[in-house]
Amino acid sequence: VGPDRHHQETPLVKIGLIGGTGIEGKGLALRLAAAGHSVFIGSRSQSKASARAEQFNSMLERPTIQAMTNMELLRETRIAFLTVPADQAVEVISSLRSGLAPGQILVDVTVPVKFQEGSPRHGGVDMLSNAERLSASLPPGVDLLCAFKTVPAHLLARLDRRLDCDVFICGDASEAKEQLMAIVRTIPSLRPVDAGPLLMSRSLEHMTVLAIWLNRRYRSKEARYRIVGI
Amino acid sequence: VGPDRHHQETPLVKIGLIGGTGIEGKGLALRLAAAGHSVFIGSRSQSKASARAEQFNSMLERPTIQAMTNMELLRETRIAFLTVPADQAVEVISSLRSGLAPGQILVDVTVPVKFQEGSPRHGGVDMLSNAERLSASLPPGVDLLCAFKTVPAHLLARLDRRLDCDVFICGDASEAKEQLMAIVRTIPSLRPVDAGPLLMSRSLEHMTVLAIWLNRRYRSKEARYRIVGI
Repeated sequence: VGPDRHHQETPLVKIGLIGGTGIEGKGLALRLAAAGHSVFIGSRSQSKASARAEQFNSMLERPTIQAMTNMELLRETRIAFLTVPADQAVEVISSLRSGLAPGQILVDVTVPVKFQEGSPRHGGVDMLSNAERLSASLPPGVDLLCAFKTVPAHLLARLDRRLDCDVFICGDASEAKEQLMAIVRTIPSLRPVDAGPLLMSRSLEHMTVLAIWLNRRYRSKEARYRIVGI
Repeated sequence: VGPDRHHQETPLVKIGLIGGTGIEGKGLALRLAAAGHSVFIGSRSQSKASARAEQFNSMLERPTIQAMTNMELLRETRIAFLTVPADQAVEVISSLRSGLAPGQILVDVTVPVKFQEGSPRHGGVDMLSNAERLSASLPPGVDLLCAFKTVPAHLLARLDRRLDCDVFICGDASEAKEQLMAIVRTIPSLRPVDAGPLLMSRSLEHMTVLAIWLNRRYRSKEARYRIVGI
């Protein structure tokens, strides 16, 4: 697989998807593999990961995506996305703690949403975002970022569709953030936006709650954000 | 003043701006008056309101905006925007309580923001939005809406500039919301978006916090939102 012709300055990297067998994992796997990166699908179950990797590779028409357990994936990749359901995020990370070494970049894409009186709301406790909760579960030296929280997963998984939206990336590790922004820049029709420190994950998660409401109200599945003026 | 030619179905209405002497009041006064509505600038001080109304009228080159005290304004208009600083919103509304009658529509545009370690954050207590706090101070029968929380005030005040963004409107009173959406539709280059129940004000206020951060990061004063896909 050759480098993306438009972004030759961005090195192609190995990227892991922890719990990458769901719809979020599918979208990221397809977009990242199509951009030329080496993608590793992780699951607790090797056979489940293998089945999904095979599906995705047949969609891409080339065998670029590899499958392994979540724990193996952490040994293979320095950047891993956490693509499990929001309410399992802390538990999954705790179970993988021994595999998380300093220098690892963990990208949280989860948003806890609950429904009350037919309306979505942020499912966090107190004012904390899921990313802030996760942050407290990580060993020292692991860089936590947030990204793709506001990008509809099923649209991400449609390689025939343009995304035409912004990807907000926040976190306290600025070098890691720069690396992730460079990776996002390799995906056509997406713009990475530096959304500040990890604290700003509160805004990103609340934006997802609004997008879910807008999808219901306007009978869409594709509500997403674009910042005007920057 | 004739009706906006493109929106003849929308009746022009009387609109009050409580504490309308600041930058938010300026932007709303100019845009609403330019669209043909009757705008009333309110202040605690009649002379302060008059001075600002005179300024705005000279910018518009026609004497359409009137000045009065906040309390008088509530007698004149059925729709009033609350355009005071966020930390004064509850106090101002409490002082006007006797003027708030059932059927009045109050539009909250405020966002409480505080800075910590150089980064903006939502200044609310617990998870509550400013709109939710306000809601608890209102007499029964007053319909509270939120709007314009994410639209940069100084850009609103530049009639020579297109806005090209969405105005998110939330609140629990659906008829009032429809009326406000029709009013927003009379302002060129703005799209009203039904952003759900009042609870969704949490998302809107957190979006303003992110926009403030983006303005710093990208040396802009104009970061604003556009939803793609609806």
